[in-house]
Amino acid sequence: MESTDVTTLTISSRNYSSWSMRGWLLARLSGLEFETVMVPIDAASRAELLLLSPSILVPCLTHEGIKVWDTLAIAEYLNETRPQARLLPQDRHARAHCRAICGEMHSGFSALRSALPMNLRAHFPNFRIWSRAQLDIARIVAVWRECLARYGGPWLFGEISVADAMYAPVVTRFLTYDVKLDPDIADYCMRVLTHPFVAEWIEAAKAEKEDIDGVLSGSENERRAGHASGTLRRISGDSGRRPDETFLVA
Amino acid sequence: MESTDVTTLTISSRNYSSWSMRGWLLARLSGLEFETVMVPIDAASRAELLLLSPSILVPCLTHEGIKVWDTLAIAEYLNETRPQARLLPQDRHARAHCRAICGEMHSGFSALRSALPMNLRAHFPNFRIWSRAQLDIARIVAVWRECLARYGGPWLFGEISVADAMYAPVVTRFLTYDVKLDPDIADYCMRVLTHPFVAEWIEAAKAEKEDIDGVLSGSENERRAGHASGTLRRISGDSGRRPDETFLVA
Repeated sequence: MESTDVTTLTISSRNYSSWSMRGWLLARLSGLEFETVMVPIDAASRAELLLLSPSILVPCLTHEGIKVWDTLAIAEYLNETRPQARLLPQDRHARAHCRAICGEMHSGFSALRSALPMNLRAHFPNFRIWSRAQLDIARIVAVWRECLARYGGPWLFGEISVADAMYAPVVTRFLTYDVKLDPDIADYCMRVLTHPFVAEWIEAAKAEKEDIDGVLSGSENERRAGHASGTLRRISGDSGRRPDETFLVA
Repeated sequence: MESTDVTTLTISSRNYSSWSMRGWLLARLSGLEFETVMVPIDAASRAELLLLSPSILVPCLTHEGIKVWDTLAIAEYLNETRPQARLLPQDRHARAHCRAICGEMHSGFSALRSALPMNLRAHFPNFRIWSRAQLDIARIVAVWRECLARYGGPWLFGEISVADAMYAPVVTRFLTYDVKLDPDIADYCMRVLTHPFVAEWIEAAKAEKEDIDGVLSGSENERRAGHASGTLRRISGDSGRRPDETFLVA
């Protein structure tokens, strides 16, 4: 029997699952009290990590007996349930802008997501970034710069919002893969990384033992189509180089 | 100088661009008066059609001088601007459910989208569907069936909503690629296809002359990674078989 009193957020790997990170950050920012339920990196999470499909298992918010299982749907639900947290901008035009860039993150940047998968424990100095991923990075930087200029910072829409949570895993990728950034963008990234909730998440990720190499077996790698396969092989089979465990949020 | 009085929706191909179709259906369902602006299938649309990236050009709603460029952001904006259209369910729990399945469509079903690209003018009887696309189809059918059972039909959430618009291009794919459906699901599909706005869109698509073969040149095909390439080659290079131009919404 499931209790309808307990609010839970189901997540998988803290180190690898960027959608889990977004959902968790949103829930923390909302101020809702919740318990975190971990599921192992099983078939569904594997598919998510391989970009084969979004998982309907993670993140999943269970609140008052209902399940909300898509990250943007969770954001909208939390915004309705906890309006005092101001997860979305109060101004109607800024709110539309915020949702537009969150939508871009939700459905796009596939080159970045496949070439630079989230891996909070790792560090790859001078990582060679594929040209299509570079285009995604350029677009993301343009999105951030426009927001910071228009709304005056320090967060994308002035106060912290859904948008900062949606892009937080991108910030961690920029560090993991040693992406060169202009000072204004590097400042924003440092602001995100030192936010208490982000720092807490990263600390917990570093304590996790699960290794994606054990999950993505060779045959899984072979079955995957296209560039994502080559990319993950490049990482998981990067002989002789150990991820630097110490660089993040010193 | 752009006038801020005229509301416009920018779309690309009516035949191939499923996101254009969704945006246009949402705008029509909202009751907002708008002019449609067509952009040719250029680099951005090509990238979208190739699943390389979402386009920030289409669909794009320009209203009161602001641009909203992601389909879900457009849906939320229209829902706020035209609450009387009830684009989202009124019940809080149903609304969360609706957003969850719209989010699934927005970021997922990549196998379906790459293997069965929208092509309203075409018909491929007995099309052989790849097993991963079959899994997406099974999930979509389960989503629809649960909604129709829980909310009683005739639309996914009782009254027509954002969800029906988000899944409408999937309905057209089921017809284009001759996907075998149980009667209850076929009934829902027919309801979507005979909705006046959907029928109007499809009629207009059939009148378009643009052919994706002219857009996706051989070298473009070669440059694309993975399964999407094989699939589109299969379609565009389907020697000797002409798409049946007459099957849809007789």
